[in-house]
Amino acid sequence: MSAWVLPDHIADVLPSEARHIEELRRTLLDTASTYGYELVIPPLMEHLESLLTGTGQALDLQTFKAVDSLSGRTVGIRADSTQQVARIDAHLLNRQGVTRLCYCGPVLHTRPERPYASREPLQFGAEIYGHEGREADLEALQLALDCLRQAGVAQAVAVMGDVRVARSLLGGLLVSMDILRQVHAALAAKDVSELAVLTRDFPAVARQALLALPGLYGGPEVLDEARRVLAAFPKALAVLDGLQWLADRLGQQAAVSYDLADLRGYAYYSGMRFTIYSPHCTDALVRGGRYDEVGAAYGRNRPAAGFSLDLKQLVTAVRKRDLRQAILAPWSEDAALQSLVAELRASGQTVIFAMPGHANEAEEFHCTRQLVQEDGQWRLQACTPAA
Amino acid sequence: MSAWVLPDHIADVLPSEARHIEELRRTLLDTASTYGYELVIPPLMEHLESLLTGTGQALDLQTFKAVDSLSGRTVGIRADSTQQVARIDAHLLNRQGVTRLCYCGPVLHTRPERPYASREPLQFGAEIYGHEGREADLEALQLALDCLRQAGVAQAVAVMGDVRVARSLLGGLLVSMDILRQVHAALAAKDVSELAVLTRDFPAVARQALLALPGLYGGPEVLDEARRVLAAFPKALAVLDGLQWLADRLGQQAAVSYDLADLRGYAYYSGMRFTIYSPHCTDALVRGGRYDEVGAAYGRNRPAAGFSLDLKQLVTAVRKRDLRQAILAPWSEDAALQSLVAELRASGQTVIFAMPGHANEAEEFHCTRQLVQEDGQWRLQACTPAA
Repeated sequence: MSAWVLPDHIADVLPSEARHIEELRRTLLDTASTYGYELVIPPLMEHLESLLTGTGQALDLQTFKAVDSLSGRTVGIRADSTQQVARIDAHLLNRQGVTRLCYCGPVLHTRPERPYASREPLQFGAEIYGHEGREADLEALQLALDCLRQAGVAQAVAVMGDVRVARSLLGGLLVSMDILRQVHAALAAKDVSELAVLTRDFPAVARQALLALPGLYGGPEVLDEARRVLAAFPKALAVLDGLQWLADRLGQQAAVSYDLADLRGYAYYSGMRFTIYSPHCTDALVRGGRYDEVGAAYGRNRPAAGFSLDLKQLVTAVRKRDLRQAILAPWSEDAALQSLVAELRASGQTVIFAMPGHANEAEEFHCTRQLVQEDGQWRLQACTPAA
Repeated sequence: MSAWVLPDHIADVLPSEARHIEELRRTLLDTASTYGYELVIPPLMEHLESLLTGTGQALDLQTFKAVDSLSGRTVGIRADSTQQVARIDAHLLNRQGVTRLCYCGPVLHTRPERPYASREPLQFGAEIYGHEGREADLEALQLALDCLRQAGVAQAVAVMGDVRVARSLLGGLLVSMDILRQVHAALAAKDVSELAVLTRDFPAVARQALLALPGLYGGPEVLDEARRVLAAFPKALAVLDGLQWLADRLGQQAAVSYDLADLRGYAYYSGMRFTIYSPHCTDALVRGGRYDEVGAAYGRNRPAAGFSLDLKQLVTAVRKRDLRQAILAPWSEDAALQSLVAELRASGQTVIFAMPGHANEAEEFHCTRQLVQEDGQWRLQACTPAA
């Protein structure tokens, strides 16, 4: 096999897209910084147990494993950074108050998450720790929407749910863990017929509510419908009020819809969760919510909310930017030219020296102007098209 | 073992250092951009053969291996990006003219390269392909020095050498590959007694020159001394003229010294090479030079010169920056406050909402100012120290 063939779902990012991703990266990190989220850089590799602590089997199968020859232990290449940042909050920083952290770096997946997804997403995320109130949920959601807006995503749609809706229907039922898991899976898959089989011995009021859940998705009217269907479950009603409170505060930031049976993804969500879509992208751009249990394995069970996204996916959802324009200069040791080039570069302009013998390659560089010597003076003029 | 223990020589980067690294990253990428170097993002993972093509055993032992479950093939996590960028130049871009590329991303090493080095350097590098003349060597060297200057490194010292000096002394000698390898290793280790044993059957003129090489390091006077010692080797003299030409053109950019026996590092250097030191750092900050053979394995043997550095090392060699100062705001739904906060954030200021119940945590955030309501107006005022 040729040395240049890459593994499936692994690709190089070439200049125009790489520059755009770099700009988006800066935009997102700077936006998070203005909300007080501090950057951390967790490592690519950790002991496997640390990476998989509390996340369940899904992440295990997604994680590349290797042997650390220094210790003989199995290490993993991170498939997600959320656990790592929770570890930093719990152990390294160990602050008493509210802590806001953000991160941006590659993760590796053994299998692509979607049919055309990269196995090496460039994950950006932000987390707020230490506040259990809904104000932290709101801040995470607003920051995610602000990040997308700054990145140039038009018409974001936030789909909200809450794992406590299903939990409040199942709470107090005397069923086995195995059945509970199957009910969760059927809800996540919106598989109503499977759900009907699994719940046939449940009390009628719980069964009816569970069977209705998969249908409770759509616009604001879903909340009214849900209040009617779930009237017998006061805890569920309180959760619905919480979603309403969040939606009211998003105002014009995004169109809001609901999916009350949404239970997909990693096992760590503990409350409100959201996904954000854009009309130009078939899959969700952002996934987030509340995962209060995430730091427990590190000895510090702090409230936590946050979100993450893949910059390699985001770049496909926003408009392509123009390539940087450059100035071509002939290679010369002339001191006046050298100092002019240094000055132009210091002002942020790109100046490319044509190496001796390569003067006619201007077109490959997207050069629109060139430095030309006239009467002993160096001047900028438009590039003349090649003959 | 506790879930928060990281593998040896692997560490989290915490907020103040992470922010500084991010600023350096932007400075270096923007500096390279003003020279016309286009950003590419090669993948973390490739088929092992692709990563190790042409680099020899050193990189093999430094590379973490895993099995790709999609293909059953062995993949490696990159330990260096130079090969990857050469692959992109040779195969993906395949331009006829001069191509300038740069990159910035993590690499993983099975063993630390220095006693206190991270096994996950954040590698930044730049490469120029397609020009065999010394102008490309000069540009790579000047860009490396400019990057360090912009990063805030004072008093850079460039140490130059050229693998063709030793090669021209050994050329034409009838000795086995094995002896040649041992001579190279002894030169790299400056092991003169080993060299004396290995070269005892060599012609006297070559032997004398080889034994003198390890002593040929130091300031500009070394070139004069070398011209005397190597007078019988016209190819070596031409190489010395090339080094002189480069040094003359660096002018005030850096102090220059020489190490004519320097053969350390990966097997791919083919001509001039350089390392750059700063007085505040015991090990070299930058390594670079010419490696014309690097693209051969991808079917395109193009001239190439460039350099790389580790941002996690660089950040320790420059002065610490002040933490960002932030503004504290009480959590409130007051519309006037909300729009003032949005305005401050849009202007680049960091505004942190104190979550309800966490109002007295201001000190942890380095907040120097706060938003306070007086007579119905929101005003910025200095933070009052906690009672």
